[in-house]
Amino acid sequence: MTTMLASDQTGPQTGGRAVKRIGIIGTGIMGTDHARLLTEAVSGAVVAGVFDLDTERAAGAAASSGGARVFADPYELISDGGIDAVLIASSDATHEAFVLACIEAGKPVLCEKPLAPTVEGCARILEAETAHGSRLVTVGFMRRYDPGYTDLKTLLKDGAVGAPLMLHNVHRNPAAVPGLPDAAVITNSAVHELDVTRWLFDEEIVEVTVHRPRATAQGGGTQDPQFLILRTASGVLSDVEIFVNARYGYEVRCELVAEAGTVTLDAPPPTSVRRGGLHARELPGDWRPRFAEAYRLELQDWIDGTGGGATAWDGFAATFVAQACVAALESGERHSVDLPPVPALYR
Amino acid sequence: MTTMLASDQTGPQTGGRAVKRIGIIGTGIMGTDHARLLTEAVSGAVVAGVFDLDTERAAGAAASSGGARVFADPYELISDGGIDAVLIASSDATHEAFVLACIEAGKPVLCEKPLAPTVEGCARILEAETAHGSRLVTVGFMRRYDPGYTDLKTLLKDGAVGAPLMLHNVHRNPAAVPGLPDAAVITNSAVHELDVTRWLFDEEIVEVTVHRPRATAQGGGTQDPQFLILRTASGVLSDVEIFVNARYGYEVRCELVAEAGTVTLDAPPPTSVRRGGLHARELPGDWRPRFAEAYRLELQDWIDGTGGGATAWDGFAATFVAQACVAALESGERHSVDLPPVPALYR
Amino acid sequence: MTTMLASDQTGPQTGGRAVKRIGIIGTGIMGTDHARLLTEAVSGAVVAGVFDLDTERAAGAAASSGGARVFADPYELISDGGIDAVLIASSDATHEAFVLACIEAGKPVLCEKPLAPTVEGCARILEAETAHGSRLVTVGFMRRYDPGYTDLKTLLKDGAVGAPLMLHNVHRNPAAVPGLPDAAVITNSAVHELDVTRWLFDEEIVEVTVHRPRATAQGGGTQDPQFLILRTASGVLSDVEIFVNARYGYEVRCELVAEAGTVTLDAPPPTSVRRGGLHARELPGDWRPRFAEAYRLELQDWIDGTGGGATAWDGFAATFVAQACVAALESGERHSVDLPPVPALYR
Amino acid sequence: MTTMLASDQTGPQTGGRAVKRIGIIGTGIMGTDHARLLTEAVSGAVVAGVFDLDTERAAGAAASSGGARVFADPYELISDGGIDAVLIASSDATHEAFVLACIEAGKPVLCEKPLAPTVEGCARILEAETAHGSRLVTVGFMRRYDPGYTDLKTLLKDGAVGAPLMLHNVHRNPAAVPGLPDAAVITNSAVHELDVTRWLFDEEIVEVTVHRPRATAQGGGTQDPQFLILRTASGVLSDVEIFVNARYGYEVRCELVAEAGTVTLDAPPPTSVRRGGLHARELPGDWRPRFAEAYRLELQDWIDGTGGGATAWDGFAATFVAQACVAALESGERHSVDLPPVPALYR
Repeated sequence: MTTMLASDQTGPQTGGRAVKRIGIIGTGIMGTDHARLLTEAVSGAVVAGVFDLDTERAAGAAASSGGARVFADPYELISDGGIDAVLIASSDATHEAFVLACIEAGKPVLCEKPLAPTVEGCARILEAETAHGSRLVTVGFMRRYDPGYTDLKTLLKDGAVGAPLMLHNVHRNPAAVPGLPDAAVITNSAVHELDVTRWLFDEEIVEVTVHRPRATAQGGGTQDPQFLILRTASGVLSDVEIFVNARYGYEVRCELVAEAGTVTLDAPPPTSVRRGGLHARELPGDWRPRFAEAYRLELQDWIDGTGGGATAWDGFAATFVAQACVAALESGERHSVDLPPVPALYR
Repeated sequence: MTTMLASDQTGPQTGGRAVKRIGIIGTGIMGTDHARLLTEAVSGAVVAGVFDLDTERAAGAAASSGGARVFADPYELISDGGIDAVLIASSDATHEAFVLACIEAGKPVLCEKPLAPTVEGCARILEAETAHGSRLVTVGFMRRYDPGYTDLKTLLKDGAVGAPLMLHNVHRNPAAVPGLPDAAVITNSAVHELDVTRWLFDEEIVEVTVHRPRATAQGGGTQDPQFLILRTASGVLSDVEIFVNARYGYEVRCELVAEAGTVTLDAPPPTSVRRGGLHARELPGDWRPRFAEAYRLELQDWIDGTGGGATAWDGFAATFVAQACVAALESGERHSVDLPPVPALYR
Repeated sequence: MTTMLASDQTGPQTGGRAVKRIGIIGTGIMGTDHARLLTEAVSGAVVAGVFDLDTERAAGAAASSGGARVFADPYELISDGGIDAVLIASSDATHEAFVLACIEAGKPVLCEKPLAPTVEGCARILEAETAHGSRLVTVGFMRRYDPGYTDLKTLLKDGAVGAPLMLHNVHRNPAAVPGLPDAAVITNSAVHELDVTRWLFDEEIVEVTVHRPRATAQGGGTQDPQFLILRTASGVLSDVEIFVNARYGYEVRCELVAEAGTVTLDAPPPTSVRRGGLHARELPGDWRPRFAEAYRLELQDWIDGTGGGATAWDGFAATFVAQACVAALESGERHSVDLPPVPALYR
Repeated sequence: MTTMLASDQTGPQTGGRAVKRIGIIGTGIMGTDHARLLTEAVSGAVVAGVFDLDTERAAGAAASSGGARVFADPYELISDGGIDAVLIASSDATHEAFVLACIEAGKPVLCEKPLAPTVEGCARILEAETAHGSRLVTVGFMRRYDPGYTDLKTLLKDGAVGAPLMLHNVHRNPAAVPGLPDAAVITNSAVHELDVTRWLFDEEIVEVTVHRPRATAQGGGTQDPQFLILRTASGVLSDVEIFVNARYGYEVRCELVAEAGTVTLDAPPPTSVRRGGLHARELPGDWRPRFAEAYRLELQDWIDGTGGGATAWDGFAATFVAQACVAALESGERHSVDLPPVPALYR
């Protein structure tokens, strides 16, 4: 039955499929959630190892994953022969080093966004993966798996509404850390729309402007909301209202405006309630219920190895454009985004 | 690693969980779909064996399930030591015999609805399972796992809208076999609402009336639509519009009317399109996209062995009430539904 | 400019139209609202006289209508030469006598529903109007002027969804008088759906059944909600949930089910609010905001004399069917509705 | 009964109200529509005179208005003793001269937008009205009367969602004249959102930017859509997608984003249709059905003389901001909007 645990795709005689042994680095909210999904809702995977600076937290995740091994050293986990692939959900600053180690070990790695906080860090990963010669890195931009977003992209690709002209995005969180740095609103939150815009239109963002609406008194001094205007290579304008202290709930919506019509993504819940003078649908309190299905599908796709996720180049580009937006926020001017040519490995 | 395939629930040292080896009897549309989900989207299961009268069809399902064994005899599949649990998706008439064989083999079985076409057949299954002494049978009323229906039930149980008074149900299919027998509209289709009503209110249906609206010319002579009025033990009235030639699409909706408000389940898709003078949401063409998530969750729950699904008693009651509805359709009168007492095993 | 106040339809040389001098009998909530609309929002009408048992209330309505004359006797108002047409909004029991007096005076009369509380009273009005030889009576079934209902009827007549098969109606009020008689739920409230069903399908109701759902504890003993099943001459089934203690708000909705599709009337308000975890649209507290536009259009049409409103025959039929529903509620059986032939004046 | 036609507000002894004798200049689509509403749906008004360069068209409007007098000279109409107030619906270039003549004649005037095409023209009107010493001019920004917009403003003023931060506007027409000048997209269409923004927030627009999305191929060379960013004195950001060749239908929507929630205005029609795989609501083909009620209420309010409409200052400011937007469109830069101080008459 060793084939059951081998990472190659040949299935056992008695049916079923190869099972990938996953190591998870970082068992905070996201890491624990991924461990649960891999154990309870994904086919062909087992959580075989976990690491966290907080060893108790690691032990808890290991136990609820059916007895995964707890590693004392993340690099040991990465290099261990009993680990077929690695999921990184540790703090942003640690992503680069762990991803590089995975590449060196020649193991597939799913890294939560951002790939790295700096353009330089992302560039080093591109170099390492290019040197390795094949793609091992997937970046956790889970919206690419959300049924609403995939539906939207299918309609666009099928020409249901003609050529795209604009995309209006709304991204709201109920509350953020008081006094969150203005730049973090872009790099932590709006970065999802930066990736969505690149992914939906299959082209790069070439120019950005950031407008400063009147700021909410709820943000403790943060410039919140912010209004980003992104221009793609073909001239499509993608505007983003990012509002991290919207109070009323968590919500992600967009409307694609095209030559023959528009497509709206709002993902209403399946039920509505009439009560107390209102006919209402509930809004989620945070992003997890909204994107629970996207996370499951992202993990299943990663385990299936079909390579549908965001690449290291996508991770690099998202960070690169985010930096341009931060500069545009500070200057108040339009900034052009001059991405380097796409390395051969990602064409 | 043989424990990876053992049916006991102890996980292997390297993490993960026990894997259940499933045998599937009947690889038509439903059986093939279940095989695909068990292989690609459910954790802890492998399709280890398949049987179908059409051996080519069986071979195809086996191949796409990672090399499951093709059995020449369904009873051999049921009794085989390499099969931990059985999924029955064969023709209705064969359900009883296969379920009885699974009980005799002491193996968990998930049987597509109906448990059996006749009340007598269902009763024999209740007797056999009672004789066995523990529950092995689950009936495939997948709506109990639909996120919309579970959301509705949670709101009801939490008292969000107070005590229930009525339930309005709409169940529409685009087209049925021309000249489908009037009774089949109830036993094949409305039976889902019979189970939903019992499940949602946790009580039995005690009286039924069936009204005959003007019939569509699209039905080839079938009395379609039909309008069922179901009364539960506590007096809740559940009305069901069942319309199997509705043409425009597949749709299942309901509204729960309670003392302080109502809850509507309509499950809109995540996107809407503005085009050609209309702002529209797409309706599915059949039940599979509408209940795809319900099927996945039903199978995962069955594999997890948490016993959340419909029991043999639920299957018996659904068939019993369906028979009463058929009689009420023919007589035009109200019929009381006199279910026998619930056997101890199901209390 | 006396022609400005003449009841004939020839306009003055300086443009404009003849102005009808209206007398209003009964200045309670409805009568006062009608007086306001006639004075402030309807073209070609002035409120020239009012009567109410409460003379202070009458004086108030007269003052806010620009100085209308207050009559001490309703019959004097009806016969006065300065009154061109009469609007009756007094208590139900008084309708018959006032309508008969208007017919005798040969003056157009708009009578709030019911035309008369009893079938016999309605019959006497039919006889009097037939003897008069032309139609003078309009019954205030204002839903016939609601933009949503007229839109629904237009779609039906245009064949947008094919031949009609069913109509599902929901009619909810937040609260009624505790212990309201069961029959009043039908004669006061459901009577609107009786008229809507006749009007929408242009045919009579021939059979009725009334089901008794579990009653709300909020009704003080009233059988509330009630569920009416109405069958039209062509076999269309129109079901009505009438719920006068629904608590959450006032709501009137329906769905027309036809051979090629359905039409839903729900009349959402123009705005929705996202707040406190909900995305909600407000529901009105009573029927007036919901049907404000219908009342205005009803009055304008009546002043224009285009005769689009409900006739005395419609008023008779509504009361006749309501009586059959009350009998069906009491017996629990189906009742056939044997209307007399339509008098020539109403064909 | 001459008081019936006097412009003072004292009503006649027999009830009713003073009737205003209206003169209409320009009987094209808008003028004819206004004449119809004044004659058939507004209380207290008669169309007493009409003028149009096309005398046949004028005669037609006069006839359908109950025999209004057809004037050969618009200035004669304005000064005629039988005309109490004037409605101007002639070509934009003629507005200034007619409005000035009305002021000189001391008669109330309702002028379709724009008050005048140039800032200078609007300024001359401000001077003339100020010299006159009281307000006579109303500008036809009818959205201020749309039930959706008034509902939105009421919610904002009541603090339902807290302090305003942003307003997202969408304004789409199905088609425009091919090759329409880029500036006309702003001055003809977006000008409505300029007024809405000023009216909703009760403050001036102080800065504007105009972005150029990829242009539709349907516009014959016009920069369409355009994306305006308006900043108000308090910092609220109001963005406007103006798209005059949107093809799919006419639509005006907006979402107010505030500190505690948002309000969306989308004004859905009362019915929806399920047919052909879609659940859809119809969109109007042009602005008239969408704003029919707004026009009626605007005219009734003007006849009532309550002065709730847009003033000459509002008309001046709208043209002033529109000019700034045109400049911003051409330069691609942010432009500050330096309005002169508000004359005393309009404070």
